Amino acid sequence: MRTTVAIIGGGPAGLLLARLLHNAGIDTVTLEARDRVHVENRQRAGILEQGTVDALRSAGAGARMDREGLVHHGVELRFDGQGHRLDFPALTNGRSVMVYAQTEIVKDLIALHTEEGGPLLFEATVREVEGAATDRPIVHYTHQGKDQRLTCDYVIGCDGFHGVARRAIPESVRVTFERTYPYSWLGILADTPPVYDELIYAHSARGFALASMRTPTVSRLYLQVPNGTDPADWPDERIWDELDSRLALTDDPGWKLARGRISAKSVLPMRSSVTEPMRYGRVFLAGDAAHIVPPTGAKGLNLAASDVITLARALEHARDTGSAELLDAYSDTCLRRVWGAEHFSSTMTTALHQDPAHSPFDARLQLSRLRRLATSPHAAAELAENYTGLPISA
Amino acid sequence: MRTTVAIIGGGPAGLLLARLLHNAGIDTVTLEARDRVHVENRQRAGILEQGTVDALRSAGAGARMDREGLVHHGVELRFDGQGHRLDFPALTNGRSVMVYAQTEIVKDLIALHTEEGGPLLFEATVREVEGAATDRPIVHYTHQGKDQRLTCDYVIGCDGFHGVARRAIPESVRVTFERTYPYSWLGILADTPPVYDELIYAHSARGFALASMRTPTVSRLYLQVPNGTDPADWPDERIWDELDSRLALTDDPGWKLARGRISAKSVLPMRSSVTEPMRYGRVFLAGDAAHIVPPTGAKGLNLAASDVITLARALEHARDTGSAELLDAYSDTCLRRVWGAEHFSSTMTTALHQDPAHSPFDARLQLSRLRRLATSPHAAAELAENYTGLPISA
Repeated sequence: MRTTVAIIGGGPAGLLLARLLHNAGIDTVTLEARDRVHVENRQRAGILEQGTVDALRSAGAGARMDREGLVHHGVELRFDGQGHRLDFPALTNGRSVMVYAQTEIVKDLIALHTEEGGPLLFEATVREVEGAATDRPIVHYTHQGKDQRLTCDYVIGCDGFHGVARRAIPESVRVTFERTYPYSWLGILADTPPVYDELIYAHSARGFALASMRTPTVSRLYLQVPNGTDPADWPDERIWDELDSRLALTDDPGWKLARGRISAKSVLPMRSSVTEPMRYGRVFLAGDAAHIVPPTGAKGLNLAASDVITLARALEHARDTGSAELLDAYSDTCLRRVWGAEHFSSTMTTALHQDPAHSPFDARLQLSRLRRLATSPHAAAELAENYTGLPISA
Repeated sequence: MRTTVAIIGGGPAGLLLARLLHNAGIDTVTLEARDRVHVENRQRAGILEQGTVDALRSAGAGARMDREGLVHHGVELRFDGQGHRLDFPALTNGRSVMVYAQTEIVKDLIALHTEEGGPLLFEATVREVEGAATDRPIVHYTHQGKDQRLTCDYVIGCDGFHGVARRAIPESVRVTFERTYPYSWLGILADTPPVYDELIYAHSARGFALASMRTPTVSRLYLQVPNGTDPADWPDERIWDELDSRLALTDDPGWKLARGRISAKSVLPMRSSVTEPMRYGRVFLAGDAAHIVPPTGAKGLNLAASDVITLARALEHARDTGSAELLDAYSDTCLRRVWGAEHFSSTMTTALHQDPAHSPFDARLQLSRLRRLATSPHAAAELAENYTGLPISA
């Protein structure tokens, strides 16, 4: 097989890129290792920046999102038993975020792309990328029991941290920067209306909690837990009791969450990682293949979107002008934004979690920082600007 | 001897308090352990917030400061070989700072207070504070070889971290929060005009450097050095070479500092510390007796000033109304501002220094934070607001 752009990975990064390139009239083939049902049911984040929302609309995948998504104009920071709302439009000159689950975005993009778009192959396992440094790289993959070759002009790795694309950059060139955090998240999906109509990020002496949502009847709730936690040690009642404690408000001591059936329960590790460069020869990395953020700032999906928006523009520019200028700049352009988001995600994470290695001094300092966010318009605006999304460069 | 307010310590905190109370018509006796020449020559900070400047003026000690002090409207952050100016008035609605050395403030206050004011005894060593929890505490001190007693209504501890006053708060009540940093500052005074007409805070791969000044002909320069550094290992030429390297600008590779005679050279440890509460019975702590900040944000002297401004108001209020309300609130009122300044000082310190324990990920994150300060008006304003000084509560 022959195509212009081979996309490895049919998650949101790969699918959004495929749609953007399709609309620009650039041929693609997308290879996804798992089956469609699996891909459409992976639970991931669901807070979209304005730039991500715009990209989904321009990819033609905005209709259901605009119908079912929930626009959020702020979040609540809760600490010391008190809530402090950050008003995003007031702090950022009108910006807000959209709550629409990644799993729904993936369904929308798959439906669109299978109906009318380049080939999207499921259960297509990429074994190797050959000739990354040449003008005609070849992607070797296995599909329906047969070994196949896909010859192309560009290979885009949207296949995550453990994918094949990242390893196509030679080890002598590739540097990975990493941090692991001394805690994880226990996340649940519950059939209960959200606690509140916006997200609550709660810092408490017992650890961090996040009250989020998927829809007006489905809540997504998280608890900070030690690394290595087995979800089996957390029966439903223990989870609800702990959420009640961590989300407690001093002036409403009788308050409890409305409990409901828990339909999913899992433990998420917290990790930061960046691989540099994001491009080697004709291989370009996007999304989790190049960088991981802890989920606290909800930046993972949004960074993946900004990568592929930048890349789609660069590929279109190269096709239209014959100039590789934007492709050559791709890694540096993306990495500036990536490191900004890594900084923000790490800052949000350390601001809100209980670190077991913290001294009493560190704990006081953490409260001072939260107080500053709650009282200083500039500190709040700095958070709100990052949360709603920094600009995406061409 | 008998007085209303016994002030232990004749540094800037004790002296400023003595002047404010003198002007309010409240009797004081100030006891300073060292001799006048020593006190007048201790090299300390010299960046004054607007609130500190106002307090010195209202204490009647503003004349020489207003004549000789240098008003600074910004600072330069230098990293990656580039300078980025933070314009304080533009970022903070008109605020700025004054460069006027603590040693000069001390001289001005001593001159004023010995001319017309409550007794100010030098070489008066306080041995013990008796009856902190009673209405009539007694300060036991030794002066001119004789043991003396000073009976008073209030004892104010302005005698630093190792002073007697802090220890008058029982250990069962007192909690000290601390952090030490894995680096120190090598500071010099040099007879050379300042590098630049504002301060330069420089982050470099070789470590932090700060180019400050005392007067238009005297520079104050600092280098990050490992803990335990012996100044003898830093001959003058090595210091100048290192300053040249750390302050280097990419677009001006031939640039060097103008060198001059080095008149003082010393190593300063970097430490954060807060003692809570700042009041026990009739004993009140102010300045370094209650809290230490690393010098990076220039907050030590300014926090001491805000403590004694708050305390002078509270003592005046108690005298005028008979109500201890403000005195009872003193510790909480000050600690809110103290922890804000501790947070800022720690943030500035970790943003600018090379931490030997940092991973490559941490180093990248540090550069992202600096880039954000250089490019985001809100991030810059958050720094500028803290640097020029948060409001002082009554």
